[in-house]
Amino acid sequence: MTLHPSVAAVRVPVRAELSRLGPGDVVAVACSGGADSLALASAAVFEGHKLGLRVAGVTVDHGLQPGSAEQAERVVAQLGAIGVDETLTARVEVDIASGLGPEAAAREARYAVLEQVAVHLDARLVLLGHTLDDQAETVLLGLARGSGGRSLQGMRRGFGVFARPLLGVRRDDTVTACQVEGLGAWDDPHNHDPGYTRVRVRDRVLPVLEEELGPGVARALARTADQLREDTSLLEALADEALARAVRPDGLDVDTLAAEPAALRHRVIHRSALDAGVPASELTRAHVLEVDRLLVAWRGQRWVDLPGPRRAVRRDGQLAIEAPPAS
Amino acid sequence: MTLHPSVAAVRVPVRAELSRLGPGDVVAVACSGGADSLALASAAVFEGHKLGLRVAGVTVDHGLQPGSAEQAERVVAQLGAIGVDETLTARVEVDIASGLGPEAAAREARYAVLEQVAVHLDARLVLLGHTLDDQAETVLLGLARGSGGRSLQGMRRGFGVFARPLLGVRRDDTVTACQVEGLGAWDDPHNHDPGYTRVRVRDRVLPVLEEELGPGVARALARTADQLREDTSLLEALADEALARAVRPDGLDVDTLAAEPAALRHRVIHRSALDAGVPASELTRAHVLEVDRLLVAWRGQRWVDLPGPRRAVRRDGQLAIEAPPAS
Repeated sequence: MTLHPSVAAVRVPVRAELSRLGPGDVVAVACSGGADSLALASAAVFEGHKLGLRVAGVTVDHGLQPGSAEQAERVVAQLGAIGVDETLTARVEVDIASGLGPEAAAREARYAVLEQVAVHLDARLVLLGHTLDDQAETVLLGLARGSGGRSLQGMRRGFGVFARPLLGVRRDDTVTACQVEGLGAWDDPHNHDPGYTRVRVRDRVLPVLEEELGPGVARALARTADQLREDTSLLEALADEALARAVRPDGLDVDTLAAEPAALRHRVIHRSALDAGVPASELTRAHVLEVDRLLVAWRGQRWVDLPGPRRAVRRDGQLAIEAPPAS
Repeated sequence: MTLHPSVAAVRVPVRAELSRLGPGDVVAVACSGGADSLALASAAVFEGHKLGLRVAGVTVDHGLQPGSAEQAERVVAQLGAIGVDETLTARVEVDIASGLGPEAAAREARYAVLEQVAVHLDARLVLLGHTLDDQAETVLLGLARGSGGRSLQGMRRGFGVFARPLLGVRRDDTVTACQVEGLGAWDDPHNHDPGYTRVRVRDRVLPVLEEELGPGVARALARTADQLREDTSLLEALADEALARAVRPDGLDVDTLAAEPAALRHRVIHRSALDAGVPASELTRAHVLEVDRLLVAWRGQRWVDLPGPRRAVRRDGQLAIEAPPAS
């Protein structure tokens, strides 16, 4: 009997991820019961047990929908049938007053509780089931924000205790893998609610892109995210250094900053504006470019008004971003 | 009588561009007779004459379509009516055997002849009519290629003698400006031929993106292009330096290169592979990452096969990309 290609597509990157652990180590899999995370759990059990790992399945009950407790129970039963060594249901309270928006608040709460679960289980890794399609959708959502490389870099392959081994795997492969393995995946009704931008990107935007530009678009978007993540990481580090070089007691040294390349000047200005209290959601590239003109195209402009309200002022060879004087 | 906002939208960036010239200087406008370049020519005449410039209108006849000579004559007449000081028709032969593809070959030929025209006219600037919509389309076409920041940086605002003052102006504004000014713009049938990917991006992809993600998408794409162009310019310069640091008589020093950040290592590898004769169209990110493993995850791999055919070999602490030995 040969291995089905979709099952192999899921198992190969999971094996690569788990190979850095050793016998007796614990790996946890976050599982919603959807095809992505169910296929991930199954692959983690198969590959993890070969490596002598203990595999724990964790499901998070947000308590946001009626029947969420029953859904969590169903996932726990499925994880048991898949053969995990341990199951755990984590209940979270989502702080809808956090100012993050309901999706972001639920995500933050989920990661926070999964981190606690990792400590409790002494897990070396917590696997998340995001796929290449999720990554492509994230890039497209970032494209609409238009804040350059930062907004296009998508999700990280790993951060803290978390890893996303399926970021190079198509969602279709996880669906097929579940079918082949007889796993009844849950289809979250939220995944079809066109009130969510992400759902419209998935159901309308990506299909049109693939139809008009070719079936390789999702993969191209994911590849772009990888490269931009590398680039952004270097550029942010260089901007840190540029900022450190320019910083003075009362502001940033204009001559030092003006000698930096545009990519770094603009990052230093952006960061300084945020540090000075300009709200991130209101700070545009147009603002950054106007402040930049105080550095590189100065003809005696007095100041630049910024949201907050704040004001960028060039004074005695230094650039300061500060509250406007009380009138 | 107040100025129509669309006419103003075209004139303002043209004025900014022309303000670096002085009385008696010559500016040429490349004009196909389409709304973009016709509105550009009109704005260049209005703003150029205020600054004491001579404004020349140039139309390029590719001779690729039947009736192209008549179309060129029509544009010359329109340019005369707009009030340019001089008109010129440049005939080009497109080298369809250049291996560039018909669109790219026509573009190369057009820029080459426009450069000659600029010399002939002693023009300080040649204005091109590309709009924000063209820029957004270029970014989306690059997205489908998936080669990261380089493929997303869109068109340059200026290069050599050329400038694109309308890169921040919506195409709709050029169409409206022509209507307001009574200019009968030509609608190139190629602009509606769905055989061209760019046409499908314009007619199908961008409208869906604007519908699902919001009307600011085209502007967001153009903004992203601007930022990525700055970033890419710095990263390419840093990669040049990293390459110079690593280069040795028989290859690249592995230890030196391995100490560079991923963003620079990957660029150095990409460039070295091209220099060694790997065809650009066949060199993928997967190849680059595999060669990178010879540097940073070396466990005695002998070599990496590349298209060409070429081979990346780690030998005596150096990385060389070379033709495989004759078998």
